[in-house]
Amino acid sequence: MIQSNLFQYNEATDWKTVGDGVQRQVFGYDDKVMLVKVKFEKGGCGVLHNHAHSQVSYVESGVFEMTIDGTKKIIRKGDGYYIPPYSVHGCVCLEAGMLIDAFGPCRWEFVDHDHQRYTL
Amino acid sequence: MIQSNLFQYNEATDWKTVGDGVQRQVFGYDDKVMLVKVKFEKGGCGVLHNHAHSQVSYVESGVFEMTIDGTKKIIRKGDGYYIPPYSVHGCVCLEAGMLIDAFGPCRWEFVDHDHQRYTL
Repeated sequence: MIQSNLFQYNEATDWKTVGDGVQRQVFGYDDKVMLVKVKFEKGGCGVLHNHAHSQVSYVESGVFEMTIDGTKKIIRKGDGYYIPPYSVHGCVCLEAGMLIDAFGPCRWEFVDHDHQRYTL
Repeated sequence: MIQSNLFQYNEATDWKTVGDGVQRQVFGYDDKVMLVKVKFEKGGCGVLHNHAHSQVSYVESGVFEMTIDGTKKIIRKGDGYYIPPYSVHGCVCLEAGMLIDAFGPCRWEFVDHDHQRYTL
């Protein structure tokens, strides 16, 4: 099984720009689950999209307007949300912050070809 | 499929005491994935244990000594880790904080019998 390292360190992990004012760090993963940090500047958008993966997320900091299946809510540090498979979702960042996204199964398209394999 | 609500709010979600100085909020879930917040007082422990579920976690705040498969590391806000299925793991909280744990598949034993079902 292809897996991430056991430990991920903020200072040692690259940020990839994935949109205007939006950056991503890929953290732990295997075939079943993946954790991703997504950092937003104020005004940064996650454009409406959908995927087969189930998603559960946590607002680590900031304030976001989140849309899921046409329902818009304002969510803040400490809140979270669930995206059912194929549900159309997106967000606008109202105050700079970070979302912690977990996907099941893994979103392999986020893993670089030279990804790290399992090492202690 | 049994699912959580689409949105979870910190202020509206019960904390369950799951150990000495350790409390848990269950956030989003379906059969594929689950997100859980685990809040630790300084000195709180996650005792060594293992499970079939893959786990990916994020340190939302605080400092922890984390043990995975006999390897101990100090991790802080912004860091993360990956627990392969059946790997023995546990932690000691060195400075009060919170871990964000995601599991694939869902840990149904964390869901109360009167859990919330999918509603908009």
